[in-house]
Amino acid sequence: MSYSYPDDASIPSEPLSRDEFEAAIRAVGAERYHDKHPFHKMLHGGELSKEQVQAWALNRYCYQTAVPRKDAALMSRVHDNDLRREWMHRVVDHDGLDRETGGIERWLVLTDGLGLDRNYVTSMRGALPATRFAVEAYVRYVREEPLVVAVASSLTELFAPKIHKERIAGMLENYEFIDESVMTYFKRRLTQAPRDADFALEYIKQNARNRIEQEACVDAVRFKCNVLWAQLDALHHAYVCGHIPPGAFRPGEMNG
Amino acid sequence: MSYSYPDDASIPSEPLSRDEFEAAIRAVGAERYHDKHPFHKMLHGGELSKEQVQAWALNRYCYQTAVPRKDAALMSRVHDNDLRREWMHRVVDHDGLDRETGGIERWLVLTDGLGLDRNYVTSMRGALPATRFAVEAYVRYVREEPLVVAVASSLTELFAPKIHKERIAGMLENYEFIDESVMTYFKRRLTQAPRDADFALEYIKQNARNRIEQEACVDAVRFKCNVLWAQLDALHHAYVCGHIPPGAFRPGEMNG
Repeated sequence: MSYSYPDDASIPSEPLSRDEFEAAIRAVGAERYHDKHPFHKMLHGGELSKEQVQAWALNRYCYQTAVPRKDAALMSRVHDNDLRREWMHRVVDHDGLDRETGGIERWLVLTDGLGLDRNYVTSMRGALPATRFAVEAYVRYVREEPLVVAVASSLTELFAPKIHKERIAGMLENYEFIDESVMTYFKRRLTQAPRDADFALEYIKQNARNRIEQEACVDAVRFKCNVLWAQLDALHHAYVCGHIPPGAFRPGEMNG
Repeated sequence: MSYSYPDDASIPSEPLSRDEFEAAIRAVGAERYHDKHPFHKMLHGGELSKEQVQAWALNRYCYQTAVPRKDAALMSRVHDNDLRREWMHRVVDHDGLDRETGGIERWLVLTDGLGLDRNYVTSMRGALPATRFAVEAYVRYVREEPLVVAVASSLTELFAPKIHKERIAGMLENYEFIDESVMTYFKRRLTQAPRDADFALEYIKQNARNRIEQEACVDAVRFKCNVLWAQLDALHHAYVCGHIPPGAFRPGEMNG
């Protein structure tokens, strides 16, 4: 089943110019990227307890560890060697290669720094089911949707450097349990994300062949924003509103 | 990726008896079936506004319409004609056959009765992304997990008649906008669910061949409870706590 396509009948036949297309993609970020989410604001503003930051970090691990799977799923569909080689950078950035560690290891440095047990984090036993559902929806989307749409879903990276800069500054300033060493993940993403986003943006400009495909690409960014937003909604509901679902991480208890 | 199996190393090698196996399945319901969820209690207790019941009904539509897809996905994997024929009942119960309408149509009678536009409901445009993610996780699970585990995931039906009886009585008593005619869906499920559950329970008793498979079946019921719980969490967060995500149904506004 696809739920990426908007209602085709409502789409004008005239294609968007390159600039209009990019502006439509960027407008989605302005409307619903997760920097607008109340949990994000609490995280950066120092309003969370260490236990709430732990909950965020161990849930977000599910997303981090799914990213190279979704990128490999995309590569598995690509017959163009150059596109695959370019996309491989993303997998290496997250998984590492040879002696170079990747983003997932850097994320575990953060969860270590927060005092979480590595086996508990990587088992994902304490993660919210809603987190897993959202993350796996993203993997499925990239595996099954048309290739140009799958590429477009990565374009939330256009909006990421701003959020990462805010995160580094806000978290270092506001939490005594956060120091420079555990923020390496975000610092590295400041250079990785823009390179990847520029490539993907150019790719969809060249490969979305008509207005329907262009709108499907815009909708892919909307979908991806939903994936990110739903994760913060689940965290907010469980760990700010206090409705922790059965089986999920409970701050202060022995979890393992 | 599978996330159904518990850690095999922790499972004793002795298989459970038929009765112990059934008791382990039923214990999951006692622990985390969604009749324990605060939103469920509000729904049945008459504590919701008509708009909140609308939000529940249009989100739950996503689940209803996914159920025959997940059952068809299961049938598509089955080489045993008798099992497929038995399972076909479920698809017919939801989709209808010939002149007989099915559960999805009966669900739309409920959303009609709540004053929702049918095209809006069936488009699922106003549904919460978290609802879609949870529901599609269930379809994927049934498509990809071992067959006996996929069958086991249906076993929340063991716990359904109680919730449906409560729902019929509670909603009729507590909401002036609910009458007998719109509750037909639940009345029909009172007879359908136990028949299906009895069959599936007998199937897994006969086909889970060792303790590891038995525990995977118990975990499948846990997974399915998470699918149901996450849907109510998302509704609760959006429509009780008031954190409606971008693009979702907004009570009182023109949605469509």
